[in-house]
Formats: sequence, C-alpha cells, structure tokens
Amino acid sequence: MKIVLIGAGNVATQLGRAFREKDFPVVQVYSRTLSSAETLGKKLQTDYTNQLQQIAPNADLYVFSVKDAALPELLKTFPAVGGLWVHTAGSVPMDVFKESAATRYGVFYPLQTFSKSRDVSFERIPIFTEANHPADQQLLDEIASSLSNRVIPLSSEKRKYLHLAAVFACNFTNHLYDIAAQILENQEIDWKVLLPLIEETAAKVQKLSPGEAQTGPALRYDIPVIEKHLEMLKDDLEKQEIYRMLSQNIHQHCE
Amino acid sequence: MKIVLIGAGNVATQLGRAFREKDFPVVQVYSRTLSSAETLGKKLQTDYTNQLQQIAPNADLYVFSVKDAALPELLKTFPAVGGLWVHTAGSVPMDVFKESAATRYGVFYPLQTFSKSRDVSFERIPIFTEANHPADQQLLDEIASSLSNRVIPLSSEKRKYLHLAAVFACNFTNHLYDIAAQILENQEIDWKVLLPLIEETAAKVQKLSPGEAQTGPALRYDIPVIEKHLEMLKDDLEKQEIYRMLSQNIHQHCE
Repeated sequence: MKIVLIGAGNVATQLGRAFREKDFPVVQVYSRTLSSAETLGKKLQTDYTNQLQQIAPNADLYVFSVKDAALPELLKTFPAVGGLWVHTAGSVPMDVFKESAATRYGVFYPLQTFSKSRDVSFERIPIFTEANHPADQQLLDEIASSLSNRVIPLSSEKRKYLHLAAVFACNFTNHLYDIAAQILENQEIDWKVLLPLIEETAAKVQKLSPGEAQTGPALRYDIPVIEKHLEMLKDDLEKQEIYRMLSQNIHQHCE
Repeated sequence: MKIVLIGAGNVATQLGRAFREKDFPVVQVYSRTLSSAETLGKKLQTDYTNQLQQIAPNADLYVFSVKDAALPELLKTFPAVGGLWVHTAGSVPMDVFKESAATRYGVFYPLQTFSKSRDVSFERIPIFTEANHPADQQLLDEIASSLSNRVIPLSSEKRKYLHLAAVFACNFTNHLYDIAAQILENQEIDWKVLLPLIEETAAKVQKLSPGEAQTGPALRYDIPVIEKHLEMLKDDLEKQEIYRMLSQNIHQHCE
C-alpha cells in the first residue's frame, strides 16, 4: 500500500504522520512549493518533489490535501499515474475527479482541526469515506479503520453539511475564544484565566446536549446584563453586532 | 466559618457542594422557591427555608447566588443578620450592597459554567475576589484558596469584562455547538461526530493562542467555500448572518 501525499499543509502533515505511525509507506510528498515539500518529506523521511512530472507512478493511493480552490486546476494537469485518488476536503464533491486522469477515485475526510505544529491522535477522529467503485469504498474503509475507530461512508451531498457544521463548532468557536481573549487583554487580564471555562464548556457537551448545556444572560433573557455588555462593546461595532445576533439567536432558539 | 447560601440555582448548588467537600459548614440554604431550597438543603444535608425572617443570624459568610436582576431587590429586604455578605455575579458591582443592611461585604466570583446536574472540580477554577475591608479581602482570599489554586483579587470595574469575555468563550461557544448540531441533525447525521473536533478545538488553545490556532475557510478567505456555505444556510437567515459576520470578523482580524 504505497501512498503519495499531494500537498504539504496542515492536513497532509498530520495525515502523513498518522500513516507512518501505522506503517503505511508514504513514498513521496509533492507540493508546488519546494520548501514545503522538503519540510514534510524530511519529517516523514521520504522522497519529495515540486515537479508534477516527477510524481511517483503506480503508487496505490494518491491523497490530495490542497486548498479547495486549487484542487480542480491541479487535477486537470496531474499526470495519469494510475492508482486510487482521494481528496481530504469536506466541501468538495467527489465528482471533482471527473475532470482528471483518474479512473478510480474517492474521498477521505477526517473531521478534525489540524495544525502542523500540533500532533493529534487519529483514533477517535471520525473519517468519512466515499469512492466511485464499491471495491475502492471497501479499500478506503479498511485504510481508514487502521487509523480510526470511527469510519463512516458518506455521500458528497451530506459531507458538505459536515464541513459547514465544523466551521461553526471549530473555526467560529475558536474565533469567539479570540474575541474573549482580546477583551481581557485590553483590560490587562491574562486571557488564560478563561482556559478552565473553555475546557469545561467543551467537556459539558460530551455528556449533555448543547441545548441542555446552555447557560448565561441570553438564555435567561437578562436584558439589563445584555444591554450593559452591548454598551461595553460600543467601540467595536462588529463585535457588538456579533454579541447581539448570538444573544437573539440563543433566546429565540430556547423559547 | 458558618456559611449560609442565598439561592439554590446552578452556582449555589455547585458552590455548596464544594464548600461541603472542604468541610466548611453550610448551615442553611435560602431560596424564594421552597422546593428549590429543599432540594439543595437535602443535597447538602442542612437546614433550608423560603422565609427571609427565618434566615440564620450570626453566620460568618452569606453567599448570594441569585439572578443578577433579583439581587438589588432582595438585598433591600434582607434582614440585618451580621457577618460578611458576598455575591457571586460577574456583572454586578460590589456597591450593590450599599443599599443593604450589610456593613461588611464583597464579591466571590468563580469563573466557570455551572449546571446543577454536572459536578465540577473547583481546584483549577479561577476565583475573583473583592471586599470593602482589607481584613475581609484577606478572609475571602483564604476561603477561596481552600477551594481553588487560582485566587485573584479584582475590582468590580475589571470583573465586568471577565463576565463579558465568559459570555463569548462559554455561552456563545456553546450556542455555536448547538447550531452545528442542528445542521447535522437536519441531515440525519449524529451530531456527536463533532465531539472530537469540539474537544480538540478547546484543547488546542491550552497550548497555542486562539490567534495561532485559527484555521478554516474564513481565515484562508476562501470565497467559493464561504459562498457555498452561505447558500446552504439560505433557509435560516439568522444563522446565515451569524456565519457572514463571524467570517468577516475572522478575516479582518487576521489580515
């Protein structure tokens, strides 16, 4: 099971590490940017290139982890190397491969936030799979199962909602942490006093549903507190509007 | 050190449990609602009442954990029982006690999200304290230190920003979990597939700052993905607007 990684960003880095840990041979890393290819290639102790014509042919699996917007263009020029081609993007339908030289293709989407500098364990990460042939669906599920306990075949149509949900649960959530940290730093209070609260907020929904776990002034519809908070945000109208919209939405949703 | 709890909601319940665990005698629970007073009184194996005239006099500490909006009214009619009076509210200034029979008063604000049904360990919870006499500041800090490793004296003026930050980092964050869960449930996908992502998003900022931890389409300013997501939210204009505002704010903040 020889694997070639196309891309050397956050997902490719973490996935490459996970494959290596499970003794899948990653035989090459390709990135348009030579220095990125080199960094990941060296990390995985494998070959690397920034030349499409040097992509290793006849590997078993080509894993495309590049920016969503860059994928269609890359696929058009990607050489007919054979093997099974998969991408790792939540929002991109499997059909993106129809405009490529691939005859066997699919999707391998791990639902997690990845950073190059932070190693994550794949064991509990749900991996959503899709393939254009039943035999490849089975192959992908086997590969995914050797990384994770939670492998779920899912159509492109459904998968895009997964990505949308992840933007709320992860990207937007992290931005709220950032807003909270800024509010404290402006007052010269160490933002890290928020860490136990952040941790418990996440831990709570492991047991209660988010609806059951909700607390705070918006839920109680505590107008004096809400108005005081809006007043405190008057120098940053965008954050004020974010506060207003989220409070309204909590209140309406819980009525 | 005899303690009377005024209120029997989430904060009073968890604080009462924590006091008891550290062998502080909670001698009475008061709540306007007899059944609430009874539930917490029985849980703490102590006396309870819903009658202000039956409040135990001469306790050392009276802890007011009632709704922010209810506190001023309650304080006006609360009997002159002596002792040190503190409230546990982030947004309420210490001066609220000026309209009461208390001569010694202060604030005891644990920065955490509490639910009756979920016991939390106080050890790592930052507790912010304030008192109108230096001796009581010291007393409160000692009490707080026996519950938590992180005790921080803080003025009312600063504390209100702490509460504002907590609304973003906890209440609004939990609501984003809720929105994400709804998106998946509408597609008949088990929302719990988000749990490892939620957990990692929170864990990440224990090591990286929220700014460093940010990922996703808004950060990359990936307009095609953002537009696809907005289109998917077209039947829920409020969530669409929340998506738009948070994406804009992430993009502007990271430019």
